[in-house]
Amino acid sequence: MAMMKTAVFVEPGRIELQDKPIPEIGPDDALLRITTTTICGTDVHILKGEYPVAPGLTIGHEPVGIIEKLGSNVRGYQEGQRVIAGAICPSFTSYACQDGLASQDGGCSCHGYKPMGGWRFGNSIDGTQAEYVLVPDAQANLAPVPDGLTDEQVLMCPDIMSTGFAGAEAANIKIGDIVVIFAQGPIGLCATAGARLRGASTIIAVDGVDARLDIARQMGADVTLNFRNVDAVEEVLRLTGGRGVDASIEALGLQSTFESALRVLKPGGTLSSLGVYSSDLSIPLGAFHAGLGDHKIVTSLCPGGKERMRRLLNVVASGRVDLGPLVTHQYALDDIVDAYELFANQRDGVLKVAIKP
Amino acid sequence: MAMMKTAVFVEPGRIELQDKPIPEIGPDDALLRITTTTICGTDVHILKGEYPVAPGLTIGHEPVGIIEKLGSNVRGYQEGQRVIAGAICPSFTSYACQDGLASQDGGCSCHGYKPMGGWRFGNSIDGTQAEYVLVPDAQANLAPVPDGLTDEQVLMCPDIMSTGFAGAEAANIKIGDIVVIFAQGPIGLCATAGARLRGASTIIAVDGVDARLDIARQMGADVTLNFRNVDAVEEVLRLTGGRGVDASIEALGLQSTFESALRVLKPGGTLSSLGVYSSDLSIPLGAFHAGLGDHKIVTSLCPGGKERMRRLLNVVASGRVDLGPLVTHQYALDDIVDAYELFANQRDGVLKVAIKP
Amino acid sequence: MAMMKTAVFVEPGRIELQDKPIPEIGPDDALLRITTTTICGTDVHILKGEYPVAPGLTIGHEPVGIIEKLGSNVRGYQEGQRVIAGAICPSFTSYACQDGLASQDGGCSCHGYKPMGGWRFGNSIDGTQAEYVLVPDAQANLAPVPDGLTDEQVLMCPDIMSTGFAGAEAANIKIGDIVVIFAQGPIGLCATAGARLRGASTIIAVDGVDARLDIARQMGADVTLNFRNVDAVEEVLRLTGGRGVDASIEALGLQSTFESALRVLKPGGTLSSLGVYSSDLSIPLGAFHAGLGDHKIVTSLCPGGKERMRRLLNVVASGRVDLGPLVTHQYALDDIVDAYELFANQRDGVLKVAIKP
Amino acid sequence: MAMMKTAVFVEPGRIELQDKPIPEIGPDDALLRITTTTICGTDVHILKGEYPVAPGLTIGHEPVGIIEKLGSNVRGYQEGQRVIAGAICPSFTSYACQDGLASQDGGCSCHGYKPMGGWRFGNSIDGTQAEYVLVPDAQANLAPVPDGLTDEQVLMCPDIMSTGFAGAEAANIKIGDIVVIFAQGPIGLCATAGARLRGASTIIAVDGVDARLDIARQMGADVTLNFRNVDAVEEVLRLTGGRGVDASIEALGLQSTFESALRVLKPGGTLSSLGVYSSDLSIPLGAFHAGLGDHKIVTSLCPGGKERMRRLLNVVASGRVDLGPLVTHQYALDDIVDAYELFANQRDGVLKVAIKP
Repeated sequence: MAMMKTAVFVEPGRIELQDKPIPEIGPDDALLRITTTTICGTDVHILKGEYPVAPGLTIGHEPVGIIEKLGSNVRGYQEGQRVIAGAICPSFTSYACQDGLASQDGGCSCHGYKPMGGWRFGNSIDGTQAEYVLVPDAQANLAPVPDGLTDEQVLMCPDIMSTGFAGAEAANIKIGDIVVIFAQGPIGLCATAGARLRGASTIIAVDGVDARLDIARQMGADVTLNFRNVDAVEEVLRLTGGRGVDASIEALGLQSTFESALRVLKPGGTLSSLGVYSSDLSIPLGAFHAGLGDHKIVTSLCPGGKERMRRLLNVVASGRVDLGPLVTHQYALDDIVDAYELFANQRDGVLKVAIKP
Repeated sequence: MAMMKTAVFVEPGRIELQDKPIPEIGPDDALLRITTTTICGTDVHILKGEYPVAPGLTIGHEPVGIIEKLGSNVRGYQEGQRVIAGAICPSFTSYACQDGLASQDGGCSCHGYKPMGGWRFGNSIDGTQAEYVLVPDAQANLAPVPDGLTDEQVLMCPDIMSTGFAGAEAANIKIGDIVVIFAQGPIGLCATAGARLRGASTIIAVDGVDARLDIARQMGADVTLNFRNVDAVEEVLRLTGGRGVDASIEALGLQSTFESALRVLKPGGTLSSLGVYSSDLSIPLGAFHAGLGDHKIVTSLCPGGKERMRRLLNVVASGRVDLGPLVTHQYALDDIVDAYELFANQRDGVLKVAIKP
Repeated sequence: MAMMKTAVFVEPGRIELQDKPIPEIGPDDALLRITTTTICGTDVHILKGEYPVAPGLTIGHEPVGIIEKLGSNVRGYQEGQRVIAGAICPSFTSYACQDGLASQDGGCSCHGYKPMGGWRFGNSIDGTQAEYVLVPDAQANLAPVPDGLTDEQVLMCPDIMSTGFAGAEAANIKIGDIVVIFAQGPIGLCATAGARLRGASTIIAVDGVDARLDIARQMGADVTLNFRNVDAVEEVLRLTGGRGVDASIEALGLQSTFESALRVLKPGGTLSSLGVYSSDLSIPLGAFHAGLGDHKIVTSLCPGGKERMRRLLNVVASGRVDLGPLVTHQYALDDIVDAYELFANQRDGVLKVAIKP
Repeated sequence: MAMMKTAVFVEPGRIELQDKPIPEIGPDDALLRITTTTICGTDVHILKGEYPVAPGLTIGHEPVGIIEKLGSNVRGYQEGQRVIAGAICPSFTSYACQDGLASQDGGCSCHGYKPMGGWRFGNSIDGTQAEYVLVPDAQANLAPVPDGLTDEQVLMCPDIMSTGFAGAEAANIKIGDIVVIFAQGPIGLCATAGARLRGASTIIAVDGVDARLDIARQMGADVTLNFRNVDAVEEVLRLTGGRGVDASIEALGLQSTFESALRVLKPGGTLSSLGVYSSDLSIPLGAFHAGLGDHKIVTSLCPGGKERMRRLLNVVASGRVDLGPLVTHQYALDDIVDAYELFANQRDGVLKVAIKP
């Protein structure tokens, strides 16, 4: 039985390289040989035991790779073809998927929804931090990579880019809008790029690290605010002449950023939340105008599926957005434990790490 | 100087009848002789001092009346014509109004928004619990009442019906949706009627008073739940086979109803909030799926303006919705203090009170 | 080899009963034993040779039946279960389906769209006017029928109800809208019911047959116009005080109805077209306001898939809409040639015919 | 009585400079001293007698100027302030305006709509090709120009930019869309810029003049096609791998461009039409897929009002779009007859002409 190296969650605080058999595929699956993958903030939550997964699971959910084997039912692809698949890779045949909620897919035949159920890689099935990964429902999820694009250029498509853009899309941005994005980690930076792509005319990026704010400008921010130097809420209100912003995007997952995002919002505006929260949230009565402010608070989980991936690949191929600056480090899969150490501690200005099996 | 009787806010706990001069109108105004008005839950908040207004203000914001005088700039109406005007009666010329946010109108020429700024009657200017009321920006706000409709039939249009329907509209209901409405006071009952009007196929109404649940069935509820007898959250989840509802409408303004509305919501669903809250709200992490549930939380303030009123009058005139059962009591303006006492204490099965100057 | 009776297109003008082998199913398929099906206007186009299909094809696309056999990959259903499937039954895994355009599904793995490609029964594969039908991609398409509903009650869901409602949905109806529907055949009647379900407050139904206008009233029309007695365009404009309608729905497929639907439309209104046209259409310059009228013209092909079917079944089960009056005649499958003769010639007040194998 | 020079429509084929009294303003008006205006394609239609206006009318509808006098009711502006006003300048108080259809404003108090009724300058009242112009309903229509912007930079906001962007907005562009724009005159170029601003990832611009295609690239086109060298329909289909475009924008007003825009459209796509047509349009049956292609055909008239202008000014001020290259020529008002001659004949590579009183 052929074996492969994989990064496995063992227990809280411990992810390690283990050998596992290369998966056997069924008729609807594909087997990818991973050429590049990466580590996500969610993986760090898993490492720390904050997001529970089964011990022994291979983690990671951002695949770039080559089709090694194709299931007998999967049509229109070739072995040897370079593809990506979304972090969210449901069947697309379920009630939830047909209801437009593929990310919350409860499975195939019951009427129910399962929160985050569309996310399978490194969550409910073995993930992508490995030499090979099995892609279920391959017909719905494999997206060919256009020639001429590097792995690094498309590495953000499966999750970070799809999520960040979704934050901008859910914010219902209109031409001429003023938008603020709180936190400029990888997802916040993609939300900044997404806000630019949707036509916001004033984009304000907030973070506490100047290097990230520099990249925020490359992604399309007009104004950057380091919250260590200014009161971001006051400054945003000042910049908008007291009007408030049309949309605010939360990209971190803390009460403080959520609350700030609400405090700067015009009545009638949209707070688009992307963060993964770890405790109950409080909505301050005043900022919420007692429930009479015509506010919208929306949350988004990463959209997936091959059509979403195709669109994001087009955005990259057309040069609209260059997320190259987000890939700051590269590690061999053999050194992934070191990569986790660097990434979890946010050392050396790391944004995203390319992992090469 | 001709005088009129008006219900005036004196201090917390005290509203009393006082004489005031009948207002002089300017070129953009109209003077209405009120034939019927009513008391709103918001007026009770004012009475109790929970919502601050200036002492001496005439309160009330739901006018049915006859045009007594028209300003020189106001075209297309006649003195003697029977009209209503929305509780929200902004100019419609401001930035906020042109931005689709008339309820949050910050006034005419600054760029700003003012939370609830579009609400003027009985808030920032003298209101409708009086023999006469001055309607500002009459050109934008007067809506003629079709012949053959009684005052009582159209009395809900200015506020309760517009607000309740807005809750259903903001819930983004689609044909075949399952919708739950928490609380079946006047606004909740109108939200129930609105959900029916938008095509929900299973409507669940929740309240603690059986008489209100009976009316909820008249308004279109398929299932009614008395939370004194059943755990409403459990029962809604049971009724939906664990799927959760497509939309939940909160129509009271308490943490408990807000939270229940979130707990029964499917991932990807919409919580449409109509309540006036009096303290910070808490979003439970679990019900919020850590921010990854593709949830929408939306709040709505009563839409106003003559086009909104025209549409609601059409709904009444066509017989689509009969809100007659909501007007349970009638008082002369002279007895309005008694009417407040009844309404504030929710005695005698009161839902809405018609006040006749 | 077990055989079954099927209605087969032989050549223009000739549909006849033939025996065919009962299909063998693959792992993703289901075999249904048809208990009730019907004839659609499109089938008449096929019969007349106006819509080309391959000679030898079994036609019909509206199945109510019992699961006889389930493919090995299909989960969550049981043999013996009563189900329906939409006339449109694509895989839901393709680019087009994930793009929200399942009806126009170009197939699985190319990027392309195929006009009407999602429609397979009786178009690109054998259809439902038979003792048995093979349902491809059964996981995405089978919808269980709630207990207590008759075949006749759910017979419209797969096509006529889904199409008619889609016409109302695409018309973007808002509460208080005035809507006109041109032609009150089965689809027009369902569009009338759909407009009512979405909150239109004045619904005007136009046809040339009084019996159909009577049923239109049962479906929710407020006003009915027999174009043999009145000039429908003039009368609609008169009824709306010259304002025009908010939305007009075309449900026949002729230049005359299309053009009338445009002539009664307010600037800014939506013309929602459901008809199958057989020649080029002309847009009159004046009615189109030289292209400056902020008009929308939208066309809809029947939405399918199990989630759509589930929603429509809910609408029926809740009693919101009763399409029973549309099933005017019943025939055995053996007599289907007679049924075609009746239906194609619109004799005896026929609306829809239940066919019983 | 103080007099001013104005460009007046005399009869078909003849526009000439005439002296008129400087208008007296009413309480809701403002008087602008025009500093820059321009000639629009619609003005050429007027000149040629193709679009009828009253002889003696001052034409032109794109004002940049200084507030000379303010009506007594107009608040929040100062005399001497530099402002623009939209070509569409309705009251915003009418039913149509409150219904979201300001461009089709039928006036204040009837329920009706009037096609193009929101357009007043140079259509139903004296226009902007003059030393002074009276702005009606000034409260709703005056938008201050941010410091630091030249007249030429904001000259497109009142009409061309608002219209072109509206074409992209109405096309419902999503991130990753492929969009084609037929004709690259000033409006088409703005539609190209608008498509870029909304997130299209492949933008194809079609015209017959290479110089315009060069500017199209500056506005954001990825691919340009000169229809004199290639069959644009075939080439667009080839470029999209037969898939068709997500949206096509028609920006000229001919049967040929309208038809091409339909032929390249994917099933389910949107044809956004901006052209002013001068004859009936034909919809080819095949390109329309017999009415079953889930197509949308939408037309847009220039959005106006001060909020729209504010947003467009923000887009210019932020440097998102630079329409400077569109202003190819400059004339004194005294020479406007020459300017018309140049513009109407499209000589010397003219795109837009700045007119300076």
